[in-house]
Amino acid sequence: MKVTFIGLGAMGLPMAVNLARAGHEMTVFNRSPKPLDAFADRPPRLAGDLRTALEGAEAVLTMLADDDALEAVVQGGLLDGLGAGAVHVAMSTISIATARRMAAMHAERGRAYLAAPVFGRPDAAAAGKLWILLAGEAGQRARVRPLLEAMGRGISEFGDEPWRANLVKLGNNFLLAAMIETLGEAVALMRKADIPPQDFIDAVNNLFQSPVYANYGGMIAEGRDEAGLFKASLGLKDLRLVLAAADALAVPMPLAGLAHDGLLTAMALGRGDADWSVLARVAQERAGLR
Amino acid sequence: MKVTFIGLGAMGLPMAVNLARAGHEMTVFNRSPKPLDAFADRPPRLAGDLRTALEGAEAVLTMLADDDALEAVVQGGLLDGLGAGAVHVAMSTISIATARRMAAMHAERGRAYLAAPVFGRPDAAAAGKLWILLAGEAGQRARVRPLLEAMGRGISEFGDEPWRANLVKLGNNFLLAAMIETLGEAVALMRKADIPPQDFIDAVNNLFQSPVYANYGGMIAEGRDEAGLFKASLGLKDLRLVLAAADALAVPMPLAGLAHDGLLTAMALGRGDADWSVLARVAQERAGLR
Amino acid sequence: MKVTFIGLGAMGLPMAVNLARAGHEMTVFNRSPKPLDAFADRPPRLAGDLRTALEGAEAVLTMLADDDALEAVVQGGLLDGLGAGAVHVAMSTISIATARRMAAMHAERGRAYLAAPVFGRPDAAAAGKLWILLAGEAGQRARVRPLLEAMGRGISEFGDEPWRANLVKLGNNFLLAAMIETLGEAVALMRKADIPPQDFIDAVNNLFQSPVYANYGGMIAEGRDEAGLFKASLGLKDLRLVLAAADALAVPMPLAGLAHDGLLTAMALGRGDADWSVLARVAQERAGLR
Amino acid sequence: MKVTFIGLGAMGLPMAVNLARAGHEMTVFNRSPKPLDAFADRPPRLAGDLRTALEGAEAVLTMLADDDALEAVVQGGLLDGLGAGAVHVAMSTISIATARRMAAMHAERGRAYLAAPVFGRPDAAAAGKLWILLAGEAGQRARVRPLLEAMGRGISEFGDEPWRANLVKLGNNFLLAAMIETLGEAVALMRKADIPPQDFIDAVNNLFQSPVYANYGGMIAEGRDEAGLFKASLGLKDLRLVLAAADALAVPMPLAGLAHDGLLTAMALGRGDADWSVLARVAQERAGLR
Repeated sequence: MKVTFIGLGAMGLPMAVNLARAGHEMTVFNRSPKPLDAFADRPPRLAGDLRTALEGAEAVLTMLADDDALEAVVQGGLLDGLGAGAVHVAMSTISIATARRMAAMHAERGRAYLAAPVFGRPDAAAAGKLWILLAGEAGQRARVRPLLEAMGRGISEFGDEPWRANLVKLGNNFLLAAMIETLGEAVALMRKADIPPQDFIDAVNNLFQSPVYANYGGMIAEGRDEAGLFKASLGLKDLRLVLAAADALAVPMPLAGLAHDGLLTAMALGRGDADWSVLARVAQERAGLR
Repeated sequence: MKVTFIGLGAMGLPMAVNLARAGHEMTVFNRSPKPLDAFADRPPRLAGDLRTALEGAEAVLTMLADDDALEAVVQGGLLDGLGAGAVHVAMSTISIATARRMAAMHAERGRAYLAAPVFGRPDAAAAGKLWILLAGEAGQRARVRPLLEAMGRGISEFGDEPWRANLVKLGNNFLLAAMIETLGEAVALMRKADIPPQDFIDAVNNLFQSPVYANYGGMIAEGRDEAGLFKASLGLKDLRLVLAAADALAVPMPLAGLAHDGLLTAMALGRGDADWSVLARVAQERAGLR
Repeated sequence: MKVTFIGLGAMGLPMAVNLARAGHEMTVFNRSPKPLDAFADRPPRLAGDLRTALEGAEAVLTMLADDDALEAVVQGGLLDGLGAGAVHVAMSTISIATARRMAAMHAERGRAYLAAPVFGRPDAAAAGKLWILLAGEAGQRARVRPLLEAMGRGISEFGDEPWRANLVKLGNNFLLAAMIETLGEAVALMRKADIPPQDFIDAVNNLFQSPVYANYGGMIAEGRDEAGLFKASLGLKDLRLVLAAADALAVPMPLAGLAHDGLLTAMALGRGDADWSVLARVAQERAGLR
Repeated sequence: MKVTFIGLGAMGLPMAVNLARAGHEMTVFNRSPKPLDAFADRPPRLAGDLRTALEGAEAVLTMLADDDALEAVVQGGLLDGLGAGAVHVAMSTISIATARRMAAMHAERGRAYLAAPVFGRPDAAAAGKLWILLAGEAGQRARVRPLLEAMGRGISEFGDEPWRANLVKLGNNFLLAAMIETLGEAVALMRKADIPPQDFIDAVNNLFQSPVYANYGGMIAEGRDEAGLFKASLGLKDLRLVLAAADALAVPMPLAGLAHDGLLTAMALGRGDADWSVLARVAQERAGLR
């Protein structure tokens, strides 16, 4: 399939590489040729401007930083350049409002649009082990599944309206934030009782048996939040999107508010670049712990 | 080993049966002989009064409903009747304050005391798949491990002070309550967006890969909280113990407060006998959902 | 002074009447002549279109429902029609973001702009007893003070940047919402203890000696929230503006979140048209009270 | 009237002095004669032991630090020494549980018992301007009113069951804590917007017109929390009593939890001796403010 990939960041680049490896005919949109190295013996076509990048594409995949970046690309040429039979697959985590507007803009122009946000960090992207949420018109969904299968370990589908996949993605990010807040409060309690945090996390792992708890639990027990795999500022942005959706749908989410406030404290203390598990540190500092 | 088991409730009975199956010389304390049926061809000695029950015991295991029940048994004869070389293993989920008092009372009398609270519901107890938290003097811990291994799939140890095992147990119950609150808020959001709850839970399962999330997620998605495997009133009691420990150790735990308040609403609405996953129903009702 | 008043609603109309009574040369912008009755023997000039309404005005006062209404009037002719020497005094409760944009738009066109949001309900407006918050360029502030004095019992000034007056207004609306939540929780506690709510409110009044507590306390004690003097939907809107400002300034405001969530529940239950003291009813219903 | 006063602390001493000034025949219970200076030309009888102090008393007033202190005095001689026709008026802020137990203990012995907790700080006590909440048997209430009138500016009555006066007192302390949290969050918002806190508080005063808001608002605007007129540790204790009552009556009080958690942070940071308005400082520190 002729695929154009836009957004070669920490997530997008390994995703595009996996598509190339799966044998798809790739075009990437980038100012410099530097990312081409990652493709090794399956080099994609490099397009320096958007119009060229879109020419002939059957599927255009975007993996951009946020609502504004997606909006800029779509308004700045993608919508004009997208071929009549092509489909745009937006894979970023975006707000429900933007997701709805995107769908409306594409529909107005008679262009196909799918939402396909992903779970997983860059290492999962590199390993082709993302979990992908997919929503939009059924025929188009069937059409792009082979592409998504090349990038992930599984796909969940959420019907005809793209924004629902985005909401499920936001819902899961809320679950992660809630888990970090939870572990932060619990670890604070254990530390004040002189129980080694990792001993507690070991017990948690025996109970939950979840790689996600094991991963974040270890980071929190060891206070490893400098790494910044997923920045606090981005986590805060996602919680804003969760709260905006909750407000629009009249759903009180006090726990989302609690996590939002913790990350806001992290921002206020100048830690926006820390990993968002810094939320657990904030919970511990409330108890007077360093 | 000569073992006396006190507290043949929904949890205690299958635990005692597993000890008998493992070949230990069991005595059980019970008014009626009815529970003996469960032991099949390995009937324990039945003692109708506490003094008789304790005679000759090397280890006395208690699995009682709450702090008051344990206190009543200990003050009402256990401490007096416990042999000089015997060890009392208290397996209930109790408060830190009671745990400390228990340890002090036994120490004063020169009797050995261990805390060994467990994770798992009655079905896990029957299958011998409890996870057991153990704390107290090291030599005594080594001595009772074979007993605990007959009842569980694993043991985590937390040093010389019994109360620490109780705090780890409370900490994990807090984690479960926090997970239920989290799922309740998220499912409310999904339902208001016309996303089938189980579809959302399926995505959650792909992310967390935890049997605990799968189990509670399914219950919440289907609104199955009538069953009452673990009652809301008992969950509320445990959250009270968590908050009492947090208060004593000067650890703000706003999320524990949130879960406590949700369960209090369940009580106020007359649902104390529902399963504690009713907390997720409360979260949905705040959003106007039935 | 030649004054044009735009926005003859429940608040605006009595404010304009007081300006007319004070001897100012009034023009009002309204489609129908109906509001003129309220002016009795001091009838203002009636202008049916915006351009005519602005002609010759030295001060243009706007008292519109919300950000969108103000934005529509300003973009829809006010900015174009405002005379070079005239000043626009925006008296609505609006967001910080809109307030900043308003100031920038006026500055770009070389037009004077002040923010003057008010405290008080329609009865206070009719009595000329509003309290007015004023911010913007000092000379312009001095110029419009006589107008504001005709409508209020006092003025507080907040410097050269108009948005600061809007933030102080939002801050005070947050205080009112917090008070309602507080009284709601306390009254729930009293009612569950069979203490008559008004007896409790009497004690509160002896402690606080505040007409605001007396007023809301009485409404809450008697459950009088149907009246809708200030609608729950509007209160929710204001709390959204508070939380947006808090987010932008990195200030966690968990209590604002709590009040927001309570009003969101009111909305979800179809009570958006109730008085915003319905927030206290939500607090009582959480305790199982009707 | 022959009055014995027990508890000559910062509050109790000026209260006893006012009783002496009103012409009552006073006995005070104290180890040293030092407090007698405060009585000037109306010296009370000094009793160094409880039994002597109670002899001949028609009314015994206690103003002790907390539940434990009251319990110790009552069990340690007061109940035994209280004359058949005498009444015990307990004026401390105590828990509902202790209040109920006190009433039961006195009833069992056939002794009269009233609760009469007070509003006001030491300066109000000295000025005879306390506000007093009174509950217990109606005849006894009528009998002690002249005593209470000598100490206060007014009395509110809450029927026949003493604990209800204690609950109203706790409810009002909750209102004060909620106000401090509210002002703390609002002042944080203002400071981040470079609005001088006192300017904001001035606007608040214009709105609320409450001496309580003016007093605490000024303390918070100026960051005067070192004084410790009412210590954070005592405020925390009162919030614990509020939450215990709320738990017992099944009333979720999330705002009480929020204030409790803020004071717990103050404790964890070693500020238990600060004035409890330190709660507002905690709110500001969450926003990164010093």
